[in-house]
Amino acid sequence: MKRYAFGFDIGGTNIVCGLVDREGEIIWTRKVPTEAGKGNDHVMAVVANCAEIGLAESGIAAEDVVGIGIGMPGLVDPEQGISVLSSNLHFRNYPVLAKLKELTGMPVCMENDVRMYVYGEAVVGAGRNRRHVFGLTVGTGLATAMVNDGKLYQGGGDFSGELGHVPIEGIDYRCNCGLTGCLETVVSATGLARQAREAVLSGQKTLLADLKQDPAELKAADVSAAYDEGDEVAVTIMHRTGVTLGKALSYVVPLLSPDIIVLGGGVLHAGERFLAPVRETLFERIMPIYRERLELAAAQRNEDAGVIGSASWAFRQFGS
Amino acid sequence: MKRYAFGFDIGGTNIVCGLVDREGEIIWTRKVPTEAGKGNDHVMAVVANCAEIGLAESGIAAEDVVGIGIGMPGLVDPEQGISVLSSNLHFRNYPVLAKLKELTGMPVCMENDVRMYVYGEAVVGAGRNRRHVFGLTVGTGLATAMVNDGKLYQGGGDFSGELGHVPIEGIDYRCNCGLTGCLETVVSATGLARQAREAVLSGQKTLLADLKQDPAELKAADVSAAYDEGDEVAVTIMHRTGVTLGKALSYVVPLLSPDIIVLGGGVLHAGERFLAPVRETLFERIMPIYRERLELAAAQRNEDAGVIGSASWAFRQFGS
Repeated sequence: MKRYAFGFDIGGTNIVCGLVDREGEIIWTRKVPTEAGKGNDHVMAVVANCAEIGLAESGIAAEDVVGIGIGMPGLVDPEQGISVLSSNLHFRNYPVLAKLKELTGMPVCMENDVRMYVYGEAVVGAGRNRRHVFGLTVGTGLATAMVNDGKLYQGGGDFSGELGHVPIEGIDYRCNCGLTGCLETVVSATGLARQAREAVLSGQKTLLADLKQDPAELKAADVSAAYDEGDEVAVTIMHRTGVTLGKALSYVVPLLSPDIIVLGGGVLHAGERFLAPVRETLFERIMPIYRERLELAAAQRNEDAGVIGSASWAFRQFGS
Repeated sequence: MKRYAFGFDIGGTNIVCGLVDREGEIIWTRKVPTEAGKGNDHVMAVVANCAEIGLAESGIAAEDVVGIGIGMPGLVDPEQGISVLSSNLHFRNYPVLAKLKELTGMPVCMENDVRMYVYGEAVVGAGRNRRHVFGLTVGTGLATAMVNDGKLYQGGGDFSGELGHVPIEGIDYRCNCGLTGCLETVVSATGLARQAREAVLSGQKTLLADLKQDPAELKAADVSAAYDEGDEVAVTIMHRTGVTLGKALSYVVPLLSPDIIVLGGGVLHAGERFLAPVRETLFERIMPIYRERLELAAAQRNEDAGVIGSASWAFRQFGS
């Protein structure tokens, strides 16, 4: 009997869900607005509704689904099944698992969304067949996760993976977390946009000034666009951002010796413009024993790694 | 029937060994010169001889010993039982396990010495009853290890734990590893002595100039001695060294969320002179979720954590 699991990637804007088989193949998928402003119970109802539609549209019977895996942003308590704090979604100490079990009647498990994303990349993406997978997503913010021999690392209080909140020498932006100079204030889509805006506002001669009438509307994609026109300011911003991440990763590699570092999230759209300085900086700062065996790769399943990861996580919990 | 294991901590100068029970109590212990200059086979013979003496002196029967655990400096391949590279001991791709099994007739396992030290601290020292123990030894060099839920983290190629070899902004000492500015060129006993020597040679007004006729003979302990006399140069050196380590640890905490960081090695002799700036720097650079739960503690079994750790490791492998 072929079995399936539901995987949910709950984001601030959209919920992506899918029915996934044991090999990580997506049989059915759907994307719906999260509508977080309508309240926590509403978001849960949207999830339950997706599951119902998934069964109906795919024709898969409920008894062939081992359970539901949920990836949620922010702090989660997987054992208690609670969303401890998700600022984007306005969740605080909300009993996600209890609510979803009640609504769906299925076994449910949950984890942090970045961990589920990296787990997905470890199972079927760039980290496939590697024992030690270190992954990071660089999008609105920067977060990390680690899968060793197929096991997810959670750390004390389930609080691991916040490399984005290391204060970096020479950066003095205030971070939302309360610290100053955090890595993600520069190394993120938000950070790229911020640097672009500052360059324009400080009167630097750059194409970025022409791309948007209001510099506040500049996006990371604009930096890539100006970069491709040979704009020196854009090249400098992209380079500085990549170098900053490369330096931060030079702590991770000797500490943990991952077999592969998988880089995902929105910043992947910048491609080698961003990856090249990351790689160059990192590889010149690590010992040959690491240099010879480490791979730094772009995520392969950027769009659906979260869904595959959380479904695979459900298989791991319930799919014996 | 009460069972025991041998634990060996093989250092560049001395071999410390002990017979340890399952609770981590040392029943018998001995320290002998390593005599690494006499060759690899000789070092192995010293180890085997220690085991023989241990049985004779303790009166414990060989059949009550589950096996031998070996902690060796440098790169080891625990699965193949090989010392891949230990510069201090002049070992290179030497089959430690095969040789010791032949000489002793007992089951033998091996690991890196710092991992065994941290494992010992996790089992019976400062990390007792903590799920996520991150440990580091700061002595001749700086190395790290991690024990999660009683399991030792090894990483790809068994190469984890080299936080000492992260190049740090603003440090430009050449490191033995080939890189420049590695953390351990400053944060180590060697690094403290180096900074003391440089201060004297550059003509700074300091008590350190009076402690040794030849500045090349200054040791880390001299920095502590001058510090206690209120010597400003010594205070600055100790502070800078502690701050440098605190900054490096501010990468470790959000990345891994350990429950406790255990600090051991020769630098412990500096006590709070060193620990205070480490703690202060680290705690002001991490988010409240970590600040509220993290402990930074001195190792409790600094002298014998390595022996207890490798014996406990042997229990883990052979003591079912």
